[in-house]
Amino acid sequence: MKRKFFLDTYGSPLYLYDNSILCDRCQQMKQFQEELERALLGIKVRMHYSTKANNNPAILKSVRDAGLNVDCMSPLELQINKECGFTKERMLYVCNNISQDEMIMVYESGLLICLDSVSQVHTWGQLYPGSSIMVRVNPGVLGVGHSQKVITSGSKTKFGVSEKQLNKLFAVAEQYNLRIIGTHQHLGSLFLNDKIPNYITGVKAGLEIVKKYFKNVEIVDLGGGFGVPYKPNEQPLDLSLLVSELIPILKDFVQSYPSVKEFKFEPGRYIPCESGTLLGTVTAVEKRNRTWWIGTDIGMNVLVRPSMYGSYHEISFEYVNINSKEVTANICGNVCESGDILGKRRRVRLPEVGDTVIVHNAGAYGYSMASNYTGRSKPAEVMIYADGEAAPAYKVIRQREKISDMMRQIEWN
Amino acid sequence: MKRKFFLDTYGSPLYLYDNSILCDRCQQMKQFQEELERALLGIKVRMHYSTKANNNPAILKSVRDAGLNVDCMSPLELQINKECGFTKERMLYVCNNISQDEMIMVYESGLLICLDSVSQVHTWGQLYPGSSIMVRVNPGVLGVGHSQKVITSGSKTKFGVSEKQLNKLFAVAEQYNLRIIGTHQHLGSLFLNDKIPNYITGVKAGLEIVKKYFKNVEIVDLGGGFGVPYKPNEQPLDLSLLVSELIPILKDFVQSYPSVKEFKFEPGRYIPCESGTLLGTVTAVEKRNRTWWIGTDIGMNVLVRPSMYGSYHEISFEYVNINSKEVTANICGNVCESGDILGKRRRVRLPEVGDTVIVHNAGAYGYSMASNYTGRSKPAEVMIYADGEAAPAYKVIRQREKISDMMRQIEWN
Repeated sequence: MKRKFFLDTYGSPLYLYDNSILCDRCQQMKQFQEELERALLGIKVRMHYSTKANNNPAILKSVRDAGLNVDCMSPLELQINKECGFTKERMLYVCNNISQDEMIMVYESGLLICLDSVSQVHTWGQLYPGSSIMVRVNPGVLGVGHSQKVITSGSKTKFGVSEKQLNKLFAVAEQYNLRIIGTHQHLGSLFLNDKIPNYITGVKAGLEIVKKYFKNVEIVDLGGGFGVPYKPNEQPLDLSLLVSELIPILKDFVQSYPSVKEFKFEPGRYIPCESGTLLGTVTAVEKRNRTWWIGTDIGMNVLVRPSMYGSYHEISFEYVNINSKEVTANICGNVCESGDILGKRRRVRLPEVGDTVIVHNAGAYGYSMASNYTGRSKPAEVMIYADGEAAPAYKVIRQREKISDMMRQIEWN
Repeated sequence: MKRKFFLDTYGSPLYLYDNSILCDRCQQMKQFQEELERALLGIKVRMHYSTKANNNPAILKSVRDAGLNVDCMSPLELQINKECGFTKERMLYVCNNISQDEMIMVYESGLLICLDSVSQVHTWGQLYPGSSIMVRVNPGVLGVGHSQKVITSGSKTKFGVSEKQLNKLFAVAEQYNLRIIGTHQHLGSLFLNDKIPNYITGVKAGLEIVKKYFKNVEIVDLGGGFGVPYKPNEQPLDLSLLVSELIPILKDFVQSYPSVKEFKFEPGRYIPCESGTLLGTVTAVEKRNRTWWIGTDIGMNVLVRPSMYGSYHEISFEYVNINSKEVTANICGNVCESGDILGKRRRVRLPEVGDTVIVHNAGAYGYSMASNYTGRSKPAEVMIYADGEAAPAYKVIRQREKISDMMRQIEWN
């Protein structure tokens, strides 16, 4: 079936997901868990999908059915997770700078919370003395990530309690009789095989801090950051390699730190990213100042990653005229900002106005970061459940916003 | 009245506007128009507020009441403008890479359209041969702007027909019997006094192109970009200076190009920016690795400019404890990305958890770029109509999104 069918039926642009790829990635994460569990006899390993990557219930249900868990960081995410059937034991609240009201909501929902500063632990302690918490630690080593904006470890980031602050943390915990039952660390978003050594260094540094300073911690959360290949020359993350690198380190840790009962990981992007494509329509094709420009209706409001982080996404076209010439072109959206560019200097066969544009690996941090900038609506989301030329089974999993939806909060007075 | 009252009543964070500042800026634009009109006897000058800066009807109504006009670039913006009472003569559709369907919507609404590429003119011509259009020209000179992402003139941007393409443009116009009744140019977003010479250079270059190549154009649109001072050491744009620089150039042009009947300008940011503040609440105060970090509930989903462009906004606090010490601090939001920082290395008196944080000059490209990233709702907007300690008259002009609003498009299946 042509992708254009979906655009014609549900509007352009549109997020299209392939559930078979999604389920495959869930299975990979499940296997990662089971391999670690087999090696770490008696120790539980829990994978928590980071809801912020994509909070569509259709995605969360595949995560749930694969036996994976979730983390969430806002009342909406918690609510969606709950409605998708995750019990409180399968959810973890991993947050940053939240209000007292939000802490109350988390406590009353019965979720374990992971707090990320002494100040937040203090606020929590005043509310719930004697309770159990997890604490995010900043292991101090330079993190990993696809952009400075998402490297979340190291001295220059806002996250986690640093080694030097630990005395203060323990004093506040003692003051409110809090039990620190788990630690958390997260090095940043998106590492591939070349950065596995950095990830491992960060894991070691974090575990050393746990051993050196924390008493009787039961849960050690090693965060996420599992990357996917966005560029054609990139290789998928070698999970077997990652497992084999982790096993001796975690084994050592378990032997020298007997209270530990569970490791957690928080893959986000890894699970839905490759299952999602963003479809749109070519609206202009133009040679200007010796540069080809391909205009589309995929603006930065629909997919902000290229504009925000300079991120690379593979872009291809579904052509009506298959015999067009190959050119180097900039591919851009319909927002009146010059930063509204999907891809620069791409080697592509020239499309025509009306052809379908396909942005690949758009299943994570695509819809979830979309906005209504310049008054444009968020697109529909469609999930394909069984691909095939004849009759694909698919479902609309989120309706396209209508103008009336975007005007709903306005008070006309 | 304390700002905290609004947070307590309508939720934190919250956009708060001061209508007196808004009306003052509208009057300044009206005066700018009138001064030019007085100097250019018989030539009309029209100021079109760029709706994308902030599309709240309460703001648009003040723009309307001041006798200013609007430009819009999406079906939603057109709809809101219409509902705010702007007649089609007071609206201009200034767009980039739009679809055929959108062109049909614009034509049927009776608005004048400004197209920005030969390809788009071609598409329009097929639909509406014999009609009148405006065309965006890229004057080729390097534009002005607060970030590379918003410099919209010069050989590296996606906007406008370049000098070398004009023959092609005229051929397509002739093919479809289109009347090019106006030209448009826009150099970029945000210039202040130091960049007035660059702006003037761009205006001259654009007018030269009109004179040299275009026949019988009636409208010349010189775009927007009028800046506001975000930093404490910046001076407001000297509109008298700008007027005095523009007058001789426009006079000259009018004399040598007799068909021109009207100049247009498109101020966006200038009108609502300084009237708006973004209020939030301090959620954590922490010294980590020798750096003070002030956590707030103003995440990048609420105000994306610092994270997206590295933009500077003045930040202050409403303190409960007025005698705190002065420190240098990073002020950040509640989103789990290290790029989620409102302000770096600011000299401030240390607030306490619960104090009110005030982000200044947030009236433009604040709410309009907000998203639901990490599942957080868009805040409420409140307009103050008469400020005073005793009883300010204010109105909620947009309700805070509820969780149910954010879930409305989900298809649960």
